[in-house]
Amino acid sequence: MVKVNALITDRMQSDVAIIPALADHLIAAGGKRLRPLITVAAARLAGATDDNGLKLAAAVEFIHTATLLHDDVVDGSQLRRGKVAAHLIWGGAQSVLVGDFLFARAFELMVETGSMKALEILARASRVIAEGEVLQLTRSHDLNLSQELYIEIIAAKTAELFAAAAEAGAVSAGVESVKTAALRAYGMNLGLAFQLVDDALDYGGTTESLGKNAGDDFREGKATLPLLLAIARSGAKEADFWERTVGRREQTDADFARVRELMIGTGAIEATLDLAADYAEAAKAALKGFPANDWRDALEQLADFSVSRRA
Amino acid sequence: MVKVNALITDRMQSDVAIIPALADHLIAAGGKRLRPLITVAAARLAGATDDNGLKLAAAVEFIHTATLLHDDVVDGSQLRRGKVAAHLIWGGAQSVLVGDFLFARAFELMVETGSMKALEILARASRVIAEGEVLQLTRSHDLNLSQELYIEIIAAKTAELFAAAAEAGAVSAGVESVKTAALRAYGMNLGLAFQLVDDALDYGGTTESLGKNAGDDFREGKATLPLLLAIARSGAKEADFWERTVGRREQTDADFARVRELMIGTGAIEATLDLAADYAEAAKAALKGFPANDWRDALEQLADFSVSRRA
Repeated sequence: MVKVNALITDRMQSDVAIIPALADHLIAAGGKRLRPLITVAAARLAGATDDNGLKLAAAVEFIHTATLLHDDVVDGSQLRRGKVAAHLIWGGAQSVLVGDFLFARAFELMVETGSMKALEILARASRVIAEGEVLQLTRSHDLNLSQELYIEIIAAKTAELFAAAAEAGAVSAGVESVKTAALRAYGMNLGLAFQLVDDALDYGGTTESLGKNAGDDFREGKATLPLLLAIARSGAKEADFWERTVGRREQTDADFARVRELMIGTGAIEATLDLAADYAEAAKAALKGFPANDWRDALEQLADFSVSRRA
Repeated sequence: MVKVNALITDRMQSDVAIIPALADHLIAAGGKRLRPLITVAAARLAGATDDNGLKLAAAVEFIHTATLLHDDVVDGSQLRRGKVAAHLIWGGAQSVLVGDFLFARAFELMVETGSMKALEILARASRVIAEGEVLQLTRSHDLNLSQELYIEIIAAKTAELFAAAAEAGAVSAGVESVKTAALRAYGMNLGLAFQLVDDALDYGGTTESLGKNAGDDFREGKATLPLLLAIARSGAKEADFWERTVGRREQTDADFARVRELMIGTGAIEATLDLAADYAEAAKAALKGFPANDWRDALEQLADFSVSRRA
C-alpha cells in the first residue's frame, strides 16, 4: 500500500497547480484506501507476483475520489473526511473539473497496465456508478421505495466499485474466470455491507467519528434503509411526523433526537446492521475456494471490519 | 455519419430513464458532429476499410457531450444549441452525473474496438481537456493574460479533442506514425481555428445564429483573444471602461454595444479571425501528404467551413 500511495501522489500531479492542491486536500485527508487495498489483496490472493495490480489499485482510488468530488457538489455536502468539503474552498466548478481530471487519469493508469479486460471492468463500473447515482437522486425522496430497489441502488452506486476493484485485481493476476467471479462476489457483498453500515451510522454515529455530519441523510430526506424501516415499523401513529420531517422536510432541531429514538425503538438500526452482517458473511464465504494465507486473512478481516466499524 | 448517429443513440440508452432523456436533450438538439466526422474522415483517409472508426467517433462525441454538460454547470450557461441548458431543466446534479455516464460510456465503446492505442489517445485527451478547463477557470479574469497562454488554454480545452479525434481515426486504420502525426496536426490546427472563431463570434454574432447568448464571454469577463486585443489596442483612454466593465464586472445594458464598436474600431475581431484563418491553412497543409480524394476534400472543406461560419 506504500507503493500504491506513492503512485497516487505521483499521478495526481499536473502543471495546473490547483489540480494537485484540490485533489490532495481530499486524498491526504486519509480515507481508508479500502478499494485499492481490495485490488492489491485480490491480485495477490489470485497469485499475482508482479506489480500490475498496483496501477489498477491507484486507478480504482482515483475513480472513487472523482465520484466523491462530484457527489459532494451534487449533495452540497459540508464535510468530508473531517475536513471542509473541497467545493466550499475551491468552488463547485473546480471540484467537478478536478473530478474529471482524476477520472481521466484513472483510465491513463489502466492503459499503462495494457489490460483490456481491466479497462472493460472499470469502464463498466464507472458507468454503473453514474447510473446508480442518478437513480438515487431521482428516487431519493420516495418513502415508498422498496428494500429491493434500495439494494439495487447501493449495489450500483457503492458496491459495484468494490466488486470491480476485486475483479480487476484478479484479472491482473491472469487467474481463471471462476476465481475472478468469486473475487467479484466478495467485493459486491463487502460493498453492500459497507454501505448499509454507512447508512446506519448516519443515524447512530457522531459527527466527530464519521468525519462528516451525522444526520445528513435525515436532513436531506434521503430514503436509506434505516429510514425506510423506521417509517414502516413505527406505524400510523408516526405518519404525520414522517410526512412533516421527511415528506415536506420541515424539521426542527429536536426532530433528529426523536428520529434516533424511533430508530432504536423500532429496531431499524439493528435490522440494517444485521443485514450488513449477512452480506459480510457472504463476502467471506466467497473466498472459501482460495488458499488460507495472509491475503485471504486480510480480505476476511476487511469484511469483519466493515461491520464492526463505528466510523 | 448515419451509422455514427445510430450508435450514439443506441449507446446513450440506460435503464435509468432520466439519463437518455437528459442526454438526448443535448444530442438531438443537433450540434455539428464535427469531431466524430473528423474521426471517420481521418480513418478513411488513412485507408480504413472497416467500421472500427465509427465506435471511436461515437466515443469522441460522448466525451464532447460530457464536457458540454459539465461546462454548462460550471459556467451557469443558460442556452446551448438554441435550447435551454440541461442543468436548468434537470438540475446541476443530474447534468454532472449524466456527463459522468457519457464519459464512462465513451470508454466502454473504446474497449469494444480493442485498440489500446485509441484508448491511450482519448484518455490522455480527456485529462488534458480537464486541465485546460481548470486553467481557464483560474485565469479567466486575468486581463494581462498573454496571447501565448491563451493559445495554450484553447489548445488544451478545445483543440486537443479535435487532435485526438483525428489521431484516433488514423490509429484505427493502422496507418504508420508519420501519417498519424499529420492527422493529429490537422485536428490541432483545426481546433484552434474553430475556438478562435467561436471567441470572435461571441462579440460579432447574434444569439439566434449562435444558439447561445452573444456577449456571454463579455458578461463573464472571460479573457478571450478578442477582448485581450481590444484592451491592448484601445489604449489608456479606455482603461477605466475596461476596469469597470471587465475588471469589476459592473456593466450596463449599453456597454456591450460600446464593446462591439471598440472590437471593430481596434480591429480586434479581424485580427482574431485572421489568426483563425492561419490555423485553418495550417490544418489543410497538414493533409498534403495524403492522396487527393473525397475524404481529403471533406477535411479541407471542414477547415474552410470553420473560418467561414457565422454561427
